[in-house]
Amino acid sequence: MDTSTAILHVAMILIAARIMGEGAARFGIPSVIGEIMAGVILGPSLLGLIQAEGLIWVLAEIGIILLLFQIGLETDISKLISSGTESVVVAITGFVLPFFTCFALSHYWFELDPMVSLLIAGTMTATSIGITMRTLSDLGRGQSKEGRIILGAAVLDDIMGVLLLAILFNFITSGSVDIASASKILLFMIVFFMVAPAMAKSISYVIHRWEMASEIPGIVPTTVVSLVLFLAWLSHALGIPELLGGFATGLALSRRFFLPFGVALKADPKFSKRVYKQMRPIIQLFTPIFFATVGLSLDLSALDWSSLFFWIFSISLACVAILSKICAGLLIRERLARRVVIGMSMVPRGEVGLVFAEIGRHTGLFNTEIYTTVVIVIAYTTLFTPFWLRLFYRYYGNLVEDSPDGLKSSSNADRS
Amino acid sequence: MDTSTAILHVAMILIAARIMGEGAARFGIPSVIGEIMAGVILGPSLLGLIQAEGLIWVLAEIGIILLLFQIGLETDISKLISSGTESVVVAITGFVLPFFTCFALSHYWFELDPMVSLLIAGTMTATSIGITMRTLSDLGRGQSKEGRIILGAAVLDDIMGVLLLAILFNFITSGSVDIASASKILLFMIVFFMVAPAMAKSISYVIHRWEMASEIPGIVPTTVVSLVLFLAWLSHALGIPELLGGFATGLALSRRFFLPFGVALKADPKFSKRVYKQMRPIIQLFTPIFFATVGLSLDLSALDWSSLFFWIFSISLACVAILSKICAGLLIRERLARRVVIGMSMVPRGEVGLVFAEIGRHTGLFNTEIYTTVVIVIAYTTLFTPFWLRLFYRYYGNLVEDSPDGLKSSSNADRS
Repeated sequence: MDTSTAILHVAMILIAARIMGEGAARFGIPSVIGEIMAGVILGPSLLGLIQAEGLIWVLAEIGIILLLFQIGLETDISKLISSGTESVVVAITGFVLPFFTCFALSHYWFELDPMVSLLIAGTMTATSIGITMRTLSDLGRGQSKEGRIILGAAVLDDIMGVLLLAILFNFITSGSVDIASASKILLFMIVFFMVAPAMAKSISYVIHRWEMASEIPGIVPTTVVSLVLFLAWLSHALGIPELLGGFATGLALSRRFFLPFGVALKADPKFSKRVYKQMRPIIQLFTPIFFATVGLSLDLSALDWSSLFFWIFSISLACVAILSKICAGLLIRERLARRVVIGMSMVPRGEVGLVFAEIGRHTGLFNTEIYTTVVIVIAYTTLFTPFWLRLFYRYYGNLVEDSPDGLKSSSNADRS
Repeated sequence: MDTSTAILHVAMILIAARIMGEGAARFGIPSVIGEIMAGVILGPSLLGLIQAEGLIWVLAEIGIILLLFQIGLETDISKLISSGTESVVVAITGFVLPFFTCFALSHYWFELDPMVSLLIAGTMTATSIGITMRTLSDLGRGQSKEGRIILGAAVLDDIMGVLLLAILFNFITSGSVDIASASKILLFMIVFFMVAPAMAKSISYVIHRWEMASEIPGIVPTTVVSLVLFLAWLSHALGIPELLGGFATGLALSRRFFLPFGVALKADPKFSKRVYKQMRPIIQLFTPIFFATVGLSLDLSALDWSSLFFWIFSISLACVAILSKICAGLLIRERLARRVVIGMSMVPRGEVGLVFAEIGRHTGLFNTEIYTTVVIVIAYTTLFTPFWLRLFYRYYGNLVEDSPDGLKSSSNADRS
């Protein structure tokens, strides 16, 4: 593909995502759905103009990393820790429940091979942080109490999902579970989340000092983006999803993050604000590319819509996958409406589920029927959750709130 | 190449370009040279870590398109037109002189094949707008009178260069000159520069109206970038360099651009300002990637440094190429120091010259020796001109100025 075509594709994705996103918002549907639909329309499902590969995939990956950076930047670390217990409960139940119920459904009910059932169950455990947080932030609920619990749970879910993937992948290729390599990954993760924010904080301090001495403009966009991308690469190299590297960097650069041992590196709130202001257009440019690429990677035209097995299996799998995640929210001690919101927010599987499905197809464990079923269930959980969440907030929003001023939407406040 | 490596490469390019750019500025060298040197260090010339291909090339291309968009955005169209005659004189002499002198040198002195000599001469005609304008703007002279004359001349040079390339390419492949296809390209160019700004202006009007009605933030970065990229693609599809599409869009969106026939589309100066403010971090992020990629594409290690022919031919070609461009500036009616600056600014050949050289290698007209010689001459004109320009301004800057307040540097003024 030549450079000129690549540039046209980027332009098409940006404008289609915008138009569909605006259109969705006009009908009361979260704009993220419009952006995904733009990908479905441009991609192999419908027009087949653009493939989710090469350049587009890298730009999308940068988009999700930057989105997680922004989420980290906006996160109040002390509040995130204070909602820690609840996040852990939600994450563990939201991981264990879908895993066992989906395995039982596939293996005992539909009598699929145990390995295939294990991988299907694995696919249904992960939560898509990107879609969930974007939907909440579209609704102006990104910084709410439920938002923090969901964020913490989704991060933990991602970590557990990757651990499970490592174990399953080992099991598939060698036929035995290698505890050593799984615990190595777990160790890397713990070290990364201990070291990365401190590292990012120290580097941001250097950038800040450097900025004051620099004579050439544009230091913040180039250095901060390269810091985010570098830590994303580092996390990937250690076996952790790249987007968590972006999240760790964002956390470290946020106004409310303090190093436990580095009191000397005083955070300058003006610098944090400047970083946020200059990074925002860049983040806004890249994130729609990610969501459109999720749509591009769903090939709905490859489905055999006339297969009876497909319909029965996909509908029952979707029901189990959705109900098991909603139940995960119900186990914590919160008001009922908030528990329901938390459970519903954990439903989208998105990109992590797609990675599982891709491995199933690559290794030959999933035939076309199983693969498309799994993808369509992921697509359903991804596409419709924002819709249901919005509906729920519209009718029961006041029951979720603690205080009346919580109703104030913050999604419009950050327009410049 | 997997996504993770690509992300690491982008991070490395960004940080290396920044460090080298800052380092260069500290020693009084224009930062653009530092950015190119960063590419030379990371690329095949030295470390061989990154190749100028695929993703990096597309990002670089987006960078130069966005840089030309910014130059267009900052350009006062009426002043550009008022310096039109001088620009035309500089462009035509700066095109004809290097072409004939370099052809004479290659064909009559070094007795090279006439076709090879024609292509060498063609390589030496184009002016690199990017490097020239970036250097002037680093020196705070981007919006000066000489800046406008150089900008106009460089744009015209690019157009003439592409026309010449089309004719030569036709001649090489078919053995005869096809006037019809050359005039078709010329016609396309005229139509493009008549229609594109009007089109961009109308679309920006739509974006402005849309922005006021939109409920989701981030409309300016996504729509303006996709507009710029779309017009860049369109210009390429019509046979015009992509970066001129970016320039046309920038001109149309600038505060001082008025449609000759569309008085109804009143420009809102606040909107232009908002576009500029939100686009700046994005432009600052992408442009260093372009200049580093220029460095990446110079493989200085492939040169045979011990060849006598290489030394004699490259030094004499460089002298002729530089002197012929400087003479181009001397023919206009301006104060002497300004004429010298204009001539010096036309010296860098950069990316357009590299395209010519690449065609010479592809078609087999250039052997390795000729190819490397041409590339080293391009590298020399590209790398050292910013240095000489800066030196000239330091000692004779006051002779170039019209008024004393012109000395005020504007390069720091646009830091936020």
